[in-house]
Order: sequence, then structure tokens, then C-alpha cells
Amino acid sequence: MTHPYAQDNDLSTATLHGSLSEPALESMNFLNEVASRYPEAISFASGRPFEGFFDTTLIRDYIETFARYLRAEKGCNDTQVNQIIFQYGRTKGIIHELIARQLARDEKMTVDPEAIVVTVGCQEAMFITLRALRRDERDILLAVSPTYIGITGAARLVDMPVWPVRSGPSGIDLDDLATQVHRARAAGLRPRACYVMPDFANPSGASLTVALRQDLLALAASEHVLLLEDNPYGLFHDGPHPPTLKALDTNRQVIYLGSFAKTGFPGARVGYAVADQRVGAGDGSVSLLADELAKIKSMVTVNTSAVGQAVVGGKLLLHDVSMAAANQRETAVYLENLKHLLGGLSQRFPAGGVSWNCPSGGFFVVVTLPFAAGDKLVEHSAREYRVLWTPMSHFYPSAEGLHQVRLACSQLTPEMIEAGLDRFAAFVAGQRHDMAGEGK
Amino acid sequence: MTHPYAQDNDLSTATLHGSLSEPALESMNFLNEVASRYPEAISFASGRPFEGFFDTTLIRDYIETFARYLRAEKGCNDTQVNQIIFQYGRTKGIIHELIARQLARDEKMTVDPEAIVVTVGCQEAMFITLRALRRDERDILLAVSPTYIGITGAARLVDMPVWPVRSGPSGIDLDDLATQVHRARAAGLRPRACYVMPDFANPSGASLTVALRQDLLALAASEHVLLLEDNPYGLFHDGPHPPTLKALDTNRQVIYLGSFAKTGFPGARVGYAVADQRVGAGDGSVSLLADELAKIKSMVTVNTSAVGQAVVGGKLLLHDVSMAAANQRETAVYLENLKHLLGGLSQRFPAGGVSWNCPSGGFFVVVTLPFAAGDKLVEHSAREYRVLWTPMSHFYPSAEGLHQVRLACSQLTPEMIEAGLDRFAAFVAGQRHDMAGEGK
Repeated sequence: MTHPYAQDNDLSTATLHGSLSEPALESMNFLNEVASRYPEAISFASGRPFEGFFDTTLIRDYIETFARYLRAEKGCNDTQVNQIIFQYGRTKGIIHELIARQLARDEKMTVDPEAIVVTVGCQEAMFITLRALRRDERDILLAVSPTYIGITGAARLVDMPVWPVRSGPSGIDLDDLATQVHRARAAGLRPRACYVMPDFANPSGASLTVALRQDLLALAASEHVLLLEDNPYGLFHDGPHPPTLKALDTNRQVIYLGSFAKTGFPGARVGYAVADQRVGAGDGSVSLLADELAKIKSMVTVNTSAVGQAVVGGKLLLHDVSMAAANQRETAVYLENLKHLLGGLSQRFPAGGVSWNCPSGGFFVVVTLPFAAGDKLVEHSAREYRVLWTPMSHFYPSAEGLHQVRLACSQLTPEMIEAGLDRFAAFVAGQRHDMAGEGK
Repeated sequence: MTHPYAQDNDLSTATLHGSLSEPALESMNFLNEVASRYPEAISFASGRPFEGFFDTTLIRDYIETFARYLRAEKGCNDTQVNQIIFQYGRTKGIIHELIARQLARDEKMTVDPEAIVVTVGCQEAMFITLRALRRDERDILLAVSPTYIGITGAARLVDMPVWPVRSGPSGIDLDDLATQVHRARAAGLRPRACYVMPDFANPSGASLTVALRQDLLALAASEHVLLLEDNPYGLFHDGPHPPTLKALDTNRQVIYLGSFAKTGFPGARVGYAVADQRVGAGDGSVSLLADELAKIKSMVTVNTSAVGQAVVGGKLLLHDVSMAAANQRETAVYLENLKHLLGGLSQRFPAGGVSWNCPSGGFFVVVTLPFAAGDKLVEHSAREYRVLWTPMSHFYPSAEGLHQVRLACSQLTPEMIEAGLDRFAAFVAGQRHDMAGEGK
């Protein structure tokens, strides 16, 4: 029998959960660690929201606004307001009605507030959803590849394999989705859901057309596979935006994973799941999936911080319960930054050999280089050229995307983007020079 | 093959995770549901903290105080303060140094701040600890029985069996602990840790003597079993309190699970783990268990709300970084309430047949009744006598504690305790009358 204690240590990773040896859980640490060692490097690696409008004094306004709402709209007295913000609270959250109003305004989605579970960021929404869907070793998750690291890590925590689905030129290859579903079923497995980010995906920047969204919904319905729709960036659009999968969903096929990390702020740690699926129990009773997710949440975090919820609720209330309205300045910054990034790439790489996609919004652009750009080159680029980026290989389960890098521009200014692209172009030229030298 | 969709529903519990059919996840819901249907009932069921000092305007003071600390002690400028409170942050948290100072002051514990992981309440600390320790189906958790429902539920989420250890008259039966460890090992299992609440345990109210703490530490060391020490109530003591297990731990045998739900406030949702164990990897490298827990945390909630941490940090800073100092008024309330509860029981049940334990602090007293008092009787008691309590059977894995009920007095006033005990005595008399009738 393996003894859990190593000779000189207290514990051994060999007897801790396998997720602790998972690359997905390491890759964010690796990038943060490189960034911390080269603080003077300009970072295209970070997809954090813009910080220029952060202001700690706003928190007071948000909380006071939320307290006024509790008094005026919910009929609470001061004792009840204090109780709601200080005490243990409803497991599914206290801003569910505001979130439903926000989704109606910003996304034209009609959502039953009772189908909403407010979570500790979108990450917890992913985690509790996968925990519910993974019953045993037969259950697998499908995910459009390249895939956000957060879903890969959450799946790993519940020992749920993630099968990649090709993205292809359109953002998701429906033929491959059908193939993977059939392949899984033939192997005696249960493909429970397919994870997809239809708007300005992290890391690809790609968006799905409305027609493709409809085809995806039809395929998911006919194949009895849920869709996990993750939508952190959908509001950072230039003008009207396409409907979400959930807005088009007439069949309760979609679990919508909502984030306020980019539209509220990350430090509040508030997200949510919309889970209106009906769950039948053996005794004939029926519950909402949201209530099942809440049972799991109660054993992970009990409930989401009422202070965090009050802050996000107050921000919503100060902007007509619209995150699109609350983020007009930020959206302008992101679109301006993206324009600079795409324009700057065109200026610096006019000839062939370096290419990139051109998202119309969001935080991310993927650049394809004429050489493999992995973790060793990130370090080299940070040290020698003082510029950071993310190898796309981090977002694939196997050796793919080796020549691709993700550039994020959300946290920068146009001046930093220009300076960063100069450094990035010098890095690329340096690598090409080395390659040419090697080729001699 | 089982199809994940039931005929008329979208999903079936038969294909969702087994925890969703777990009594531990249902029992809190059941009690809350009964409480909501009988709002005029006086509740001895709720172990929530006293609400009389809750004041939403304090949150502003707490955050401003924390911001001042960042400027004065950490040398932050305003931009950095805004970034720390609004942006994504350090996975292990931003108040780890304050927590280490608090533990030194309040518990005389010397803790490396790097060994602290700040979590979304103590519940997340339990969850990520069990997720790390449960590698495969051989890993089991031992827990002193009766057991707090939160640890049972967290274990269920990671499919980790919980083996009860008898509490006996002293709070933990060390002979039974050794027996269970040997029995598990003989069955090819790995007993990874024993969960214990040494101070005013929930639900039993029991505390361990210092000698027993030392014997427990020695046994855990010789048997190579970690101790998970949960300590939410230890500061609510009349005068000096015994050292925690972690304060006595010279061998890194204890993972300390800390809560600010009762000493800070529940709505902040801030807790922590102290995990100073050394973890050896296959390649000879060594890490702190805290860093391994942080990897898991990053895939559950990313990081703990900076706003929540700022609020707790500010409360600490306003009271000389001592939660004992911050809770002088609350501690007086709890001790006064406990005195009323114990005195009121003596007045109302002078003869034999009804007995109870006499904790010197904390929130809970266990009353033993001359009849079985389960969920059906809770409902009867709420409806007919307008008084609520918790059946102790909720805290046992099998049919134990059937004649026992837990009375909590933390959220009440002396007047409510007196009125509630009148109702409770009437309920007991009513049941005894019925029993006498049945005996005829």
C-alpha cells in the first residue's frame, strides 16, 4: 500500500488528487510567475479588465444604492437591510431578480429569477454545473477547442474527461461535434454537455454567426447534449450584438454561465448560472436544475458574499439595470485598443508569414507565427524583448496551436499597445533571424 | 445504456451526481423550509451569529481602514489600492498577513502567512482540503461523531466516505479513533485525516481538555493521520481559552480551518486554511500544502472576493488585529444567552427524564429527551408549540441521537429564550402526555 507520507515530507503528490499534476492548473501560475519576474515587460498575456475607472469610493455608492433598493422595492426596514448584507443568506443569491432584469435589458433574454444561481464568479458556476453533471466515470464533457483553461480545470477537479471539438473556420465544427457525440456513445460514455463561448471567445476571439448558433442548438437538441454557454465578453461589441444561445433556446438546451468579472469588477467575485432545466427524481417529483446546483453550492461556499452581490447590484441599479450602459466608457476603451492592436499588427507585419484573426470586439486576437512559440520563448521574449504574450498551446489538450499566440489588449493603453507591438515585432524579427541562421 | 434524459423532463437525478440524493445536503434545506413556514416560531435551530450589532454603514469604515493600511503599511498609492480591491488578486488571498497577526494575538499561534489560503468561508477551506486529500476510492475521512453537516457534504462532493469516530464522554474517544484507523488500513483504505472541532463543537457543544488535545496530537502523529481542526466558536469563551490543536502542533499534523463567519460576519464569506505541510513531488521538489490547495481553489472560485477580504481586514485593523477584542460585545451576549438557556432548562426540567450538557461557551446545548425527536416532531413542535430545534439525528450517519435535540441560543435575546423555553417545555409535556396515553 502506498503510504501517504513521503520519507522527509508530510505528504506526497502521489497520494493527492490528480488535478494537482494537471497542466491546466499550472499554466496560469507559470504565466503569472513569468510576469512577476519581468515587471517592466508590457503584457499582452493578461485578459484582465481595464483598470482606469477603478475607484474604491464607488463601493460605498454601490452598497448604499443596493440598500435603498431593498428599502424602496423590497419593503425592507433598516434591520432587514443589515440582516441581508451581514447574515447568511439565500443559497441561490439575493440579486437574482436584478440579474433577470439585466438579461432582459441587455440580452433580450426572458429568464425566471428562480432559475438563477448567483455564484462566486463564473468559475464557481462552471464548477457546480460540472459537479452535478458528472455522476460517474461514464460522463464526459465536450468543449470547443481551443478551450478556456477555467473549464478544463473545473472538469479535472471532478475527474470529468474533456473531449475537444474542432472549432474550424466558423468557431465550431458541427460535424465534428456530432462525430464526437457518436464516438463517445459508441464507447459507452455519456457526453453530457458541450462548452462553448459564442462571443469573442477566450482564447480564440472568434464569434459564431446567428445561423450557426441556430444550427448548434438544433444539433444539441437532436443529440440530447446540453450546451454550456459562457459569455463574459458579449457586451463589448461595437453596436448591436447577436442573440446569445440562451436567448435563442426554446428547448431548455442551454445552461448559461454569466460573469460580472468584466462588466462589474473581478474583486467582487460575482457570477451566476441560468439553469432552467427540469430534473425528474425517481419518486416522480420535479425540480429546477438551479435548485440542484444550489445544493452543491451550499457545500462549496454556502452562499455568495452578500457584500459582493450588493456591490454588483448597486452598480446595476446606478445604470438602469444595464451592464451595457454601465460599461460605455470601458467598451469604448476596449474597441479603441482592439483597433490599435489590429492596425498596429498590419503596420508591423505587412508582408506574409505572420497572420492574425480580426475580431470585431472582445479582448483577444490570435497571431500565427512562422515559428513555434511555447513557454521557453515566452520567457525569452520577456527577458530579451520585454514583451509578454500567451502561447496558444496552453489552450489545447495535445500538441496544437504551437505556432500561435494570444494577444490581449484589455488592460493596456494605445501607447502601451504601440510600444508593446514594437517589442513584439522585434522579438519576431529576432526569431526569424535565428531561424534563418539555423537554416544556413 | 441509461439515457440522461427522463421521458418528460430534461434531466434525471439518476444521472446526476450522487451527492444530490445525500441527506446531509437536504437536512439544512428541510430545517430552513420548516422555519420559513412557521415564521412566528422561536428558533433554537439557527446557529447564526447575533444580529444586534449589524450595521451596513460599518462596511465603509472597514474598507477605508483597509485602504489606509495598504497605503501606510504596504506603501501602495491610490491606483494600487484600487487595483487590489477591484482586480483579480493573489489566489491565496490579500489578508494573510493580518490573519497571521490575528492568530498570534488571539490564539498564540505562530503561522507563516504563506501557509494561509484565504477562502470563501470556512466551507471552501474544507472543500479544497478534502479535494486535495481524496485521490481515489481508497481515501477516507474520519470525523468525530456527531459531525458538522458542512464537512459531511463537502466529503460527499468529492466521493470521500466519512467514517464516524465515537465522541464518548470526553469529546473524542481515542481508542475508537485508533480502532477505525486500523480497521481502515486492514481494508486497504487510507484514513487521510480526522475532522474535529475541539472548542464548543457544532452540534455537541463539547470541548476537549488540554491533556486530551495533546494525546490526540500524539496519536495522530504515530498513526500518520492529519487532523482537520475546525474552530468557528473558540473565541466565545468566558476568560482565557485552551490552546488550539494547531497551537500545540509541533509536527505539522494539523490543518487549521478558520472561519470569520461568527467573528467577522457571515455576509463577507471569508475563511481560511492554515496548511503548512510539506508536499514532496516525484521530481524531488517540495511545496507547501497551502500552495497545492490554492491550485484547487483557483479552479473553484479563482480567488476570494477582495471586497470581502477588505471588510474583514478592516474590522481586524479597527480592533488591534484581534477578533477577541472585536467581539467583546458579542461574546458577552452569547455567554449571557447561554446562561439563560442553561438556567431556564434547570427551572423547567427540575426532575429527571430530561437532561442536557453544560458547555462553558459557544452556541450549542444538547438536550436528551425521554422520547425520540425527529423531523416529524420538529414540524409538530413548530406548528403546535411555535418553537423550533434541531434533531441531533441530522448529525449522525446512521440511526443515532434519536432522543437528542440541539438548542442554539446565539441569535436570540434572553426574553426570546425564556419564551422559547416555555414553549419547548410545553412541547415536551405534550409529548410525555401522549406517551403516557399510549402506555395505557
